[in-house]
Amino acid sequence: QIDSARLWDSIHETAKFGATPKGGVRRLTLSQEDKQVRDWFRKACEDAGLEVHIDALGSMFALRKGRDMSKPPVGLGSHLDTQPTGGKFDGILGTLGALEVIRTLNDAGIETDAPLCIVNWTNEEGSRFAPAMMASAAYVGDFTVEDILSRKDASGTTVGAALDEIGYRGATAVGTQKFSGFVELHIEQGPILEAENKTIGVVDHGQGVFWYDGKITGFESHAGSTPMPLRRDALLTLSEFALTLEQIALKLGPNAVATIGEAVIANPSRNVIPGEIAFTIDCRSANADTLEALDASLRAAAGEISKKRRVEIAIDQVWRKPPTHFDPKLVDAVERAAGTLGYAHRRITSGAGHDACNLNTIMPAAMVFVPCKDGISHNELEDATQSDCAAGTNVLLHTVLSLAGV
Amino acid sequence: QIDSARLWDSIHETAKFGATPKGGVRRLTLSQEDKQVRDWFRKACEDAGLEVHIDALGSMFALRKGRDMSKPPVGLGSHLDTQPTGGKFDGILGTLGALEVIRTLNDAGIETDAPLCIVNWTNEEGSRFAPAMMASAAYVGDFTVEDILSRKDASGTTVGAALDEIGYRGATAVGTQKFSGFVELHIEQGPILEAENKTIGVVDHGQGVFWYDGKITGFESHAGSTPMPLRRDALLTLSEFALTLEQIALKLGPNAVATIGEAVIANPSRNVIPGEIAFTIDCRSANADTLEALDASLRAAAGEISKKRRVEIAIDQVWRKPPTHFDPKLVDAVERAAGTLGYAHRRITSGAGHDACNLNTIMPAAMVFVPCKDGISHNELEDATQSDCAAGTNVLLHTVLSLAGV
Ligand SMILES: NC(=O)NCCC(=O)O
Ligand SMILES: NC(=O)NCCC(=O)O
Repeated sequence: QIDSARLWDSIHETAKFGATPKGGVRRLTLSQEDKQVRDWFRKACEDAGLEVHIDALGSMFALRKGRDMSKPPVGLGSHLDTQPTGGKFDGILGTLGALEVIRTLNDAGIETDAPLCIVNWTNEEGSRFAPAMMASAAYVGDFTVEDILSRKDASGTTVGAALDEIGYRGATAVGTQKFSGFVELHIEQGPILEAENKTIGVVDHGQGVFWYDGKITGFESHAGSTPMPLRRDALLTLSEFALTLEQIALKLGPNAVATIGEAVIANPSRNVIPGEIAFTIDCRSANADTLEALDASLRAAAGEISKKRRVEIAIDQVWRKPPTHFDPKLVDAVERAAGTLGYAHRRITSGAGHDACNLNTIMPAAMVFVPCKDGISHNELEDATQSDCAAGTNVLLHTVLSLAGV
Repeated sequence: QIDSARLWDSIHETAKFGATPKGGVRRLTLSQEDKQVRDWFRKACEDAGLEVHIDALGSMFALRKGRDMSKPPVGLGSHLDTQPTGGKFDGILGTLGALEVIRTLNDAGIETDAPLCIVNWTNEEGSRFAPAMMASAAYVGDFTVEDILSRKDASGTTVGAALDEIGYRGATAVGTQKFSGFVELHIEQGPILEAENKTIGVVDHGQGVFWYDGKITGFESHAGSTPMPLRRDALLTLSEFALTLEQIALKLGPNAVATIGEAVIANPSRNVIPGEIAFTIDCRSANADTLEALDASLRAAAGEISKKRRVEIAIDQVWRKPPTHFDPKLVDAVERAAGTLGYAHRRITSGAGHDACNLNTIMPAAMVFVPCKDGISHNELEDATQSDCAAGTNVLLHTVLSLAGV
């Protein structure tokens, strides 16, 4: 049994790095706030006797020796970056839960057979730099390290420059720290566990994600003297596209979602008809065919609306992450741990993307979910109970022990 | 007859202050580029023997003596600020056309009975600070000078600070420079004169304008794990509102337009459902009842959409400018001048707002329009021919002479 109060204290101690007035956390990846929480985390790991090293994309690895050092470690952890309107739990629970697992083993004097390794993955959120789960994607070879280092944020800063700015461009080559498997604890970020009164979600699938950059090019003209029928209004075009996309997702059933999260009018002015808008699209489904259907439908809609409104709509797919089917043996191990500990549990599909989804493409991976209040996440009001956080961490502990051997 | 080549040269000489790569001008009011064109304009006026003074809101007055200095001067001019995606003619033709009128009188050694006074009004465009035609509105008493000085741009800079920054907070109290009447030359900014092959528009009416600040408050949540029906998406709300507003304007007939020119998502992120959007609305009609109908319909639409999507929509009217009926005698004077000079002409309603619309509330005012290419304005591609610009300036010259007396 982990120390519930100590875990809770750690979560609230780190929540001060980027704390927002509404009780949330704004800690964009590789920002000064991210540096603060990284420094805190490094020290906490070293205080727990772990050996910390950092890879070329800033991901942090904290190693606990095992009896048999010829064995690759069992990986556990998550991320410490947040959304602009993030909460105290998304990613943080999984990282500090992993630290709590180590502290518990230390207190109990338990040595594992295989070593253990906590990871804090860089830029899981994907708000500042695209794609999300950036560092774990490079780790599994979905992108080259050079490509990722050159990605830019909205102000033009590259990942490489941002790493240097906070001193977290590490010496370890990306992908060289090996694992026998990876287990990630996380809040559900959806409403199912809470609604069904389950303490633990045994995650067996994860939704696939397609991300797009869109650009609408209409024609700037005078808001007073341009008759309605002659306008080539980029905002009305986006509006029609957004509502059509909503209908497409609704028609494809409960197993599909689509979101326009960013939209920026170029050179906006109250009395100018918007002539150019850059926007993003996020499409998801746990079903690969549904995701392709979303893709085809949104492109067809863009074509029709563009013709009707005499504007250009460019749609560029910038990220393709297929649905995840987590390793059946590891999923079973999580389920067994939850059962042994006596927690009400159910199998569940992750709506969000996670580093564990990337890792699962090259090694056995699995996830443990705990409920969050009203299913709210990516919001400053994100919340979870101390006892659910502790329960999830206990399941993580027992799963990791079963994998590492005692 | 004015000097067409000299006028054309002046227009192109000032177009370098804020020139854009696409051939337009970006010269936001009270910016460094605005200071440059103001300095140029002051020197050009002084070189033409005019006495320049500046009022507390930065409007520039350049006085040419008349035979009878007990008479108030005839005012002529426009503005030198532009939209973010502005052209070389909007406002500039009217200001430099007025300068050309003075230069022509100087060359011909013509003294007028009443004095003449060119004005360059501060912030006609309303892009950086609201409302548009800001300084002339304060001149006629629609707003207090203190109120206007405290208006802020998007970065929080006040009008007062911006005036001080470029050294154009003048000593003349606002409203103290009197006029017997005001004549403004401008490009049409619409397609009618060009389509009907007319050289001169005799402006008899101007559309009324309502401006609004809007704010939608929905709820930020996760783009992957929040089912479509549970979302309270601020961008989908804006989309539905924007398309409804378009339908409202279309239904109210050709004599109504409505535009959302600005829309900014708070804390945007690709994988976060937008929770808050600030936006603006611009509604216009030459008919006061139609304008009120637009207002009522858009408020009703906001109420319905807000209920349907479970979000808040706040709509705050920040500017009310009733339709303008220009002074019949001055309108006749413009028409006579166009007829005498033999230009094809027609009466026309202004779709855009102009400083002359404000002045008309306290003195006789009128306007002269010339065609612009494809009716395009508030766009870098805005264009007009040298001969149309010269024709409009000749009409301005003859109108002003008929008012001032020779
Ligand atoms: N867990 C989580 O919110 N990850 C962010 C990446 C995404 O799913 O959009
Ligand atoms: N003439 C002109 O474009 N004025 C700007 C004010 C407005 O009509 O929006």
